[in-house]
Amino acid sequence: MAANPSFLKYVDDHQADFIQRLKEAVEIPSVSGNLEYVKDVENMADFLIKQLTELGVKAEKRAIGSHTITGEEVALPPVVIGSIGNDPSKKNVLVYGHYDVQPALKEDGWDYEPFTLTPDPSGSGRLYGRGSTDDKGPVMGWLNVLEAHKKLGIELPVNLKMVFEGMEESGSVGLDKFIESEKDGFFAGQDCMCISDNYWLDTKTPCLTYGLRGINYYEVRISGPSRDLHSGVFGGTVHEPMTDLFAIMSKLVSPEGEILIPGVKELIAPVTQDEQDKFEKIHFEMADIHAAVGGDVTISEDTVKTLMGRMRNPSLSIHGIEGAFSAPGSKTVIPASVAGKFSIRLVPNLGINNTTECVYKYINEEFKKLGSKNKCEVELTHGGEPWIADPNHYSYRAAHKATVEVYGQEPDYTREGGSIPVTLDFANILGLNILLLPVGRGDDGAHSTNEKIDTSNYINGTKLLGSYLYELAAISKD
Amino acid sequence: MAANPSFLKYVDDHQADFIQRLKEAVEIPSVSGNLEYVKDVENMADFLIKQLTELGVKAEKRAIGSHTITGEEVALPPVVIGSIGNDPSKKNVLVYGHYDVQPALKEDGWDYEPFTLTPDPSGSGRLYGRGSTDDKGPVMGWLNVLEAHKKLGIELPVNLKMVFEGMEESGSVGLDKFIESEKDGFFAGQDCMCISDNYWLDTKTPCLTYGLRGINYYEVRISGPSRDLHSGVFGGTVHEPMTDLFAIMSKLVSPEGEILIPGVKELIAPVTQDEQDKFEKIHFEMADIHAAVGGDVTISEDTVKTLMGRMRNPSLSIHGIEGAFSAPGSKTVIPASVAGKFSIRLVPNLGINNTTECVYKYINEEFKKLGSKNKCEVELTHGGEPWIADPNHYSYRAAHKATVEVYGQEPDYTREGGSIPVTLDFANILGLNILLLPVGRGDDGAHSTNEKIDTSNYINGTKLLGSYLYELAAISKD
Repeated sequence: MAANPSFLKYVDDHQADFIQRLKEAVEIPSVSGNLEYVKDVENMADFLIKQLTELGVKAEKRAIGSHTITGEEVALPPVVIGSIGNDPSKKNVLVYGHYDVQPALKEDGWDYEPFTLTPDPSGSGRLYGRGSTDDKGPVMGWLNVLEAHKKLGIELPVNLKMVFEGMEESGSVGLDKFIESEKDGFFAGQDCMCISDNYWLDTKTPCLTYGLRGINYYEVRISGPSRDLHSGVFGGTVHEPMTDLFAIMSKLVSPEGEILIPGVKELIAPVTQDEQDKFEKIHFEMADIHAAVGGDVTISEDTVKTLMGRMRNPSLSIHGIEGAFSAPGSKTVIPASVAGKFSIRLVPNLGINNTTECVYKYINEEFKKLGSKNKCEVELTHGGEPWIADPNHYSYRAAHKATVEVYGQEPDYTREGGSIPVTLDFANILGLNILLLPVGRGDDGAHSTNEKIDTSNYINGTKLLGSYLYELAAISKD
Repeated sequence: MAANPSFLKYVDDHQADFIQRLKEAVEIPSVSGNLEYVKDVENMADFLIKQLTELGVKAEKRAIGSHTITGEEVALPPVVIGSIGNDPSKKNVLVYGHYDVQPALKEDGWDYEPFTLTPDPSGSGRLYGRGSTDDKGPVMGWLNVLEAHKKLGIELPVNLKMVFEGMEESGSVGLDKFIESEKDGFFAGQDCMCISDNYWLDTKTPCLTYGLRGINYYEVRISGPSRDLHSGVFGGTVHEPMTDLFAIMSKLVSPEGEILIPGVKELIAPVTQDEQDKFEKIHFEMADIHAAVGGDVTISEDTVKTLMGRMRNPSLSIHGIEGAFSAPGSKTVIPASVAGKFSIRLVPNLGINNTTECVYKYINEEFKKLGSKNKCEVELTHGGEPWIADPNHYSYRAAHKATVEVYGQEPDYTREGGSIPVTLDFANILGLNILLLPVGRGDDGAHSTNEKIDTSNYINGTKLLGSYLYELAAISKD
């Protein structure tokens, strides 16, 4: 069922009001994880509560404990929850967003004040400001949908629950416990979930995102001498930890990005025909990635292979070495203890544990082969599982229809190469199908200077979120 | 000819005076390369001039230009030259030392004030202080020899020229030009040269040092993307510079320290029977090196192999990477441009240029094999040639005899694994045989906190330097 035409008209007629709402939100510098902004984050929660309440939502702030910022213990930003509609004949939909933002200072290189929503003077329609696209734009999008229905006096087609957190940019501390504690309370009985906190792959094509890669981050520490040595005095007499480290870490991945750790490849879930089809349909040009990386250094010139390399296949990156000489100039040191750092991006069914088993086994075996008297220790310092949703679930089908209605084109089905840990928390604890339904474009620059959202994305995004609810209400669960 | 017995007696009788001389020298904090100490370095030069003049030496300070320290142009410390004796029937001997010292602050971890010569309260005879062994102790040793002869009213057995510089700890800037300019002036007609600015290999055995390894320092830069990338977004799609760098740098040296660069091994001068004999006679225990490195990580447990690894064979050490992640923690960066740093210690006939040819050829070939789209550049950032003297030269034979006379034991014939660039400058420009005749012990901690010289080394060192001149005077040049 397409959206109520009066809803769509209301959105078109109230663009300026909606931009004003986003402007007010951006003006609150709700930077999480920074003592200086603790009050602003709280203010942003209050802003949401006030707006939600005015729009007929039963909203409340929920305390979720405390944390330590630069030595001081302070309350974690509250989780804002809201609930509207309680009709047993309607579907129950949970949406998530976050009201905190990344840090931003004009002197970081912003062209405008980061906490003042500034329309591009050239008239492109771009709205610059910290949080404009990540994630205040999408959150205001939900509020815009609520406002339209409230003002028009029409009911939402679904029962809607909202959860907005204020710690996403600082690791979502405390959210998993909150979800767990409200699993059978606030979160009970939901049919599906929608998160709008990611981006189109390019600047032209709307997309639905159904997967995220996970990540295992490892440190390989090689220790030998008890102190750094001078290579003039000791070079040629001792097993040097750096030599061993380079020997080990050079055996992890080929220049073409193939992971050389035995057992890893075998774990990867085979590509289904449906996945293959979805990848082949993605709108993507090699010129986009060449521009993004600033050079012609892609492993493949094939778009599908490149997209699979980013979204579907694991990858292994070597990030650096702790404990070695890293400054400019020439230092003739033999570092005594060095830790090489690398990570593997995980995909189904390459999980934290089975991957780590392969890694530990391989590195220990390879180190043994060196015959070095140094010591080698491998540690998994961080692990995040990969996530994938059923892209043919009715929630996706509803979003697909809504996209066609609003944008006149079919959405790409994408996955993100990086991780969004909250998705995994919701998926694992609540067992819901989760739809990632982005509002912004691939060039929005979330986390960067000059973060922006295009007015058309913000307005059409509002229509999309509303239309999705209508299609969701009407669609068969089968 | 053994030393004049009255000289030896004088030294024994004037130990306290000689320690007082060293005390006064240590009290002048002549730290080169630091604006704060420019005046002190100059004062130290004046101290030398005053003492040398009083001891009958024709001494003068020679200006050698200027240099820039933290933005300010200042005069280089003067070279102090001195000359005593002009008897055409005697040999002409040149000695070198330096009067500047490494920086030192009590708070660096010194147990005593670094610029106050402090006898070990436990009565071990150790004299703590910056410069005590590097190189004020040996320089005062020469002055002690002069004092004894002056006071006893006996002539030195040789004509002695002295050159004391004040920039050794800061790269000996300007000295090479000075040597060049005085090649046919002050330095003309010298028979041989003695430098006392190194150390015994252990704490018990005097040694003569006849070789130094050189060093070639290289950077391998791999560049790809024009900016650092996020491994979640780009991992699996681009050729990562770190992957290429590890592939290349893992092929340089084996865990046993064998250099894998083709052509290098073939360049090394074969070991002569005389060298082999000298290495086999060196007093050295594996326990010493295990203690020095703080662990049982030596490649070999054979003393001769270990000594050759340090002194006679080239070695390759990987020092670190510039441009990669090097801090504690986990950062999921794909560094865009990284420079791996390694150096090769050079030995005869492995020179700067023929070694570099092998390195460039090999790295470029190996990089080509990777099939990467990144760029690879290798650069020799610093080169220093190896040096070796004829250890059977009459100057060495004289020092050998003197050692037996003073210490009652034959000296070890050692080489240093590191470089002492001034040695090379004198050798190349003046074409003289150079004897490195150490006064201090292997555990003196030059450049470290709690630098010391043992009283017995200082006093016997004075006798040794004097006795060397007597043996030199008598020995046949054949």
